[in-house]
Amino acid sequence: MHKIVQQGSKSLIESRIKRKSLLSKVVTDVSQLIPHFQNGHYVSMGGFAGTGYPKVVPIALADHVEKNGLQGKMKLNLFVGASVGPETEDRWAMLDMIDRRYPHQNGHHIRNGINNGRIRFADQHLSTFASDLLAGYYTIDKPHGSKRTMDIAIIEATEITEDGSIVPGASVGITPEILQMADKIIIEINTSLPSFKGLHDMVKIALPPYSKPYQITRVDDRIGLEAFPVDPEKIIAIVESQLPDNTSVGAPEDDTSAGIANNIVQFLIHEIEQGRLPKNLLPLQSGIGSIANAVIGGLSRGPFDNLSVWTEVIQDTFLDFFDNGKLKFASATSLRFSPPGFNRLFNNWENYKNKIILRNQAISNAAELISRVGCIALNTPCEVDIYGHVNSTNTMGSKMLNGLGGSGEFLRNSRLSIVHTPSTRPTKTDPHGISCIVPFASHIDHTEHDIDIIVTEQGLADIRGLAPYERAKVIIENCAHPNYKPILMEYLESSRQICLKNHMGHEPHQLDKAFKFYTNLSEKGTMKIDKW
Amino acid sequence: MHKIVQQGSKSLIESRIKRKSLLSKVVTDVSQLIPHFQNGHYVSMGGFAGTGYPKVVPIALADHVEKNGLQGKMKLNLFVGASVGPETEDRWAMLDMIDRRYPHQNGHHIRNGINNGRIRFADQHLSTFASDLLAGYYTIDKPHGSKRTMDIAIIEATEITEDGSIVPGASVGITPEILQMADKIIIEINTSLPSFKGLHDMVKIALPPYSKPYQITRVDDRIGLEAFPVDPEKIIAIVESQLPDNTSVGAPEDDTSAGIANNIVQFLIHEIEQGRLPKNLLPLQSGIGSIANAVIGGLSRGPFDNLSVWTEVIQDTFLDFFDNGKLKFASATSLRFSPPGFNRLFNNWENYKNKIILRNQAISNAAELISRVGCIALNTPCEVDIYGHVNSTNTMGSKMLNGLGGSGEFLRNSRLSIVHTPSTRPTKTDPHGISCIVPFASHIDHTEHDIDIIVTEQGLADIRGLAPYERAKVIIENCAHPNYKPILMEYLESSRQICLKNHMGHEPHQLDKAFKFYTNLSEKGTMKIDKW
Repeated sequence: MHKIVQQGSKSLIESRIKRKSLLSKVVTDVSQLIPHFQNGHYVSMGGFAGTGYPKVVPIALADHVEKNGLQGKMKLNLFVGASVGPETEDRWAMLDMIDRRYPHQNGHHIRNGINNGRIRFADQHLSTFASDLLAGYYTIDKPHGSKRTMDIAIIEATEITEDGSIVPGASVGITPEILQMADKIIIEINTSLPSFKGLHDMVKIALPPYSKPYQITRVDDRIGLEAFPVDPEKIIAIVESQLPDNTSVGAPEDDTSAGIANNIVQFLIHEIEQGRLPKNLLPLQSGIGSIANAVIGGLSRGPFDNLSVWTEVIQDTFLDFFDNGKLKFASATSLRFSPPGFNRLFNNWENYKNKIILRNQAISNAAELISRVGCIALNTPCEVDIYGHVNSTNTMGSKMLNGLGGSGEFLRNSRLSIVHTPSTRPTKTDPHGISCIVPFASHIDHTEHDIDIIVTEQGLADIRGLAPYERAKVIIENCAHPNYKPILMEYLESSRQICLKNHMGHEPHQLDKAFKFYTNLSEKGTMKIDKW
Repeated sequence: MHKIVQQGSKSLIESRIKRKSLLSKVVTDVSQLIPHFQNGHYVSMGGFAGTGYPKVVPIALADHVEKNGLQGKMKLNLFVGASVGPETEDRWAMLDMIDRRYPHQNGHHIRNGINNGRIRFADQHLSTFASDLLAGYYTIDKPHGSKRTMDIAIIEATEITEDGSIVPGASVGITPEILQMADKIIIEINTSLPSFKGLHDMVKIALPPYSKPYQITRVDDRIGLEAFPVDPEKIIAIVESQLPDNTSVGAPEDDTSAGIANNIVQFLIHEIEQGRLPKNLLPLQSGIGSIANAVIGGLSRGPFDNLSVWTEVIQDTFLDFFDNGKLKFASATSLRFSPPGFNRLFNNWENYKNKIILRNQAISNAAELISRVGCIALNTPCEVDIYGHVNSTNTMGSKMLNGLGGSGEFLRNSRLSIVHTPSTRPTKTDPHGISCIVPFASHIDHTEHDIDIIVTEQGLADIRGLAPYERAKVIIENCAHPNYKPILMEYLESSRQICLKNHMGHEPHQLDKAFKFYTNLSEKGTMKIDKW
């Protein structure tokens, strides 16, 4: 399915292994690594948001399963910081190679496997995931070996330093944690990339009672290591890779995302005028995806200067933001560029590399640091309800998309928490068949207590300091699509009337009708109900 | 209604005002302060969890409203760290003196006012509330004066130091923040209490971009001030009070709370054995209420030693815990003892005062610190759903109890997040009419992503690392009441079957039936449905 590039570039890989005693670990025939992977094993990979992940060994393993008809007989428990490329996790899912998968994923086959009950998945906050992994929460039921280790880890690196430490590639994710936890480690050195040395700042996380303050107050502060140490005895192989990260180009900006971005820009200007935000704003966080990407594009053309970013993923439009001189520095755990975006990065490497730090996801997403630097969080949910509860993960309450990723950590800890979504999405029969503003969210990842601002292309609702009924009115009025405004308002007012009569009118609902949008959608292909 | 104690103890109050220039601010006729309060004003009070709050002036104001028939004509916007005594906020509510009230409350009349739509209330995380208040998020719509200030603040103190700083009483709450924000300040010095000087550690919170790490790594670390500075020009009056905090004795331990406590003790022993917890555990956090109080009582008789507490409220059973030598130190923002509990405290003041620190709620509940000290969080919700979503605030989705308080901050940031509840509660017609384990929580304050352990008197569900369907099975099996187990299991299995068929089986629900427990409860007085 995929060609494994194993060019005889021994001198190339040797130039990246500065610790010469490790040269003996170089393996050119990857097939000899296959026996290290056994059905039921706990396997970790580096990588985050589809970049910086290992490719050669996961692909070889998939080829082995496919060639030998081992589908469903070689199932692994897979732990990766976030999503990795489709040629690895999604192909593994297609070949029924995944039993458990935590805490985030991306791809058609893996999503199907989860929603068809074949893959055991749970999403988790990404910083918490890293520390819970270290604490042994994901290996409680591991039936073999130590209850605090992974059987095997595969990491992509771009260099091994003289002291034997690992320099990752385009992402850090949980690489530092799995280098500590794995019984065996395979390192893929990607010689098609430059060495990323100097771009990372990695920390050895100490769990309570040994935790200390993270001494970061600015987005460009460094508190860790540019290369992460590893016990050389655990390294069972070093493999050369020349495979690029398998990313794609995001959807271009459209009227909806431009409208959303404009509403956000106008709001931020207002907040500066009111003295609630400094002129250069506060460090921006932006979720993943094409709307988020377009919003950052819109902000980069806004009247703001001298900005900084504290986020988990840096996408293509951040390059424009650097290039126009308005963005001074960005901290993240992953660079997720499209192929042309990576070309821009590498072509101007010396310029960009001094403006970027990549950190453990345990650091980029730490509550402590998001709160201290005081992010302006910008995230795209599936739906928002009239009281400000937010669904980021499960459509119709049950069907998993990708997982909540860092949205929870950023929305709950930021100084200003903004969610932005189109007001509607199309179904097969109705271009506005799905309202993204609903009476009661069918799944809740972020509660009313954590959201300050809701934005659609229709407008912006500032719900700070408002009681639930006030919130609902402003969300419906400012954010709902005109097709749904009267329907939502009728739900709100009749719920309020009934609940007040029963002395339970704080956050008025009619639980027998709260999910009617979804039953109507299932039956008629649209949330436009005929009557309540 | 309440007698205002204004004993002519001038020498007593003088002995507490060490800053002699402030003696001129002492007011003995409280009625002359009434005109400072105007309809529509933004008013703050000190106090937290019903202790350390001002009494004389709020009571005088209520008397004034009652005497002059001003009910509904003198409505104030009231901002207090958490709840205060019934003779203040609840009487104000009875007299229709409250327009807005944030972020927590307690009392029959205030709850009724909220649920009858007369009082605009929203609950908010307590640490976030303090910083959002400073950031101006609660004064955005203030129609008069600065958009960053409160009109007036009333504080209970036990001493004013030589440099004019304030020593609070039994709680800190948001006292430091409102001393900074208020245009006018009234100080009630409670001379019936000892001076609490030395018990507090108060911090001037800096908002981003000026935030710095809180340099606390142990529960007994101090980073702040024992008395908080205040601009003397803002002090419009100092009033003597001899009114005690109006607390009550909690419900005694019963079989249910003893069963819950025992399940928790057994689990913690297991975690120590597995090496996931140190022998002296990690700092305990405990919610407010009689079940939480009983659980701490149970832990104090458990086989643990050398313990510490990082919490928001210290209740009566903590005194037993100190007395038996097992609890070494406790950090909180409030001492909420019953009258006999306060007597125990004051009778052995020199002993206890070296084992307790009271901090701003912005510190006691800070994500940064809960995460760093690595709390074991123990909180009592109203209900938990089969996937681990938790409702702490609204019964039947709409009716507010008290607010989420610190439960969100502790559950989401602790090293181990435990919720404990009886498996059922009675209705008028059925002693087990309400199941606290439900298919879909009617309101969600804490999501599946934040909960590790669920405990009822029936048993304990450890849901760490489990996928949703696995979680549901263990929660129903271990925690649900036998009356509800088959009903819940039938919902789970039929939902799974239907959702898998529709390729949406990650977190299986039937949205047309998910709230049937509540409609049945409304109609028939029990959640025991006849059929799905």
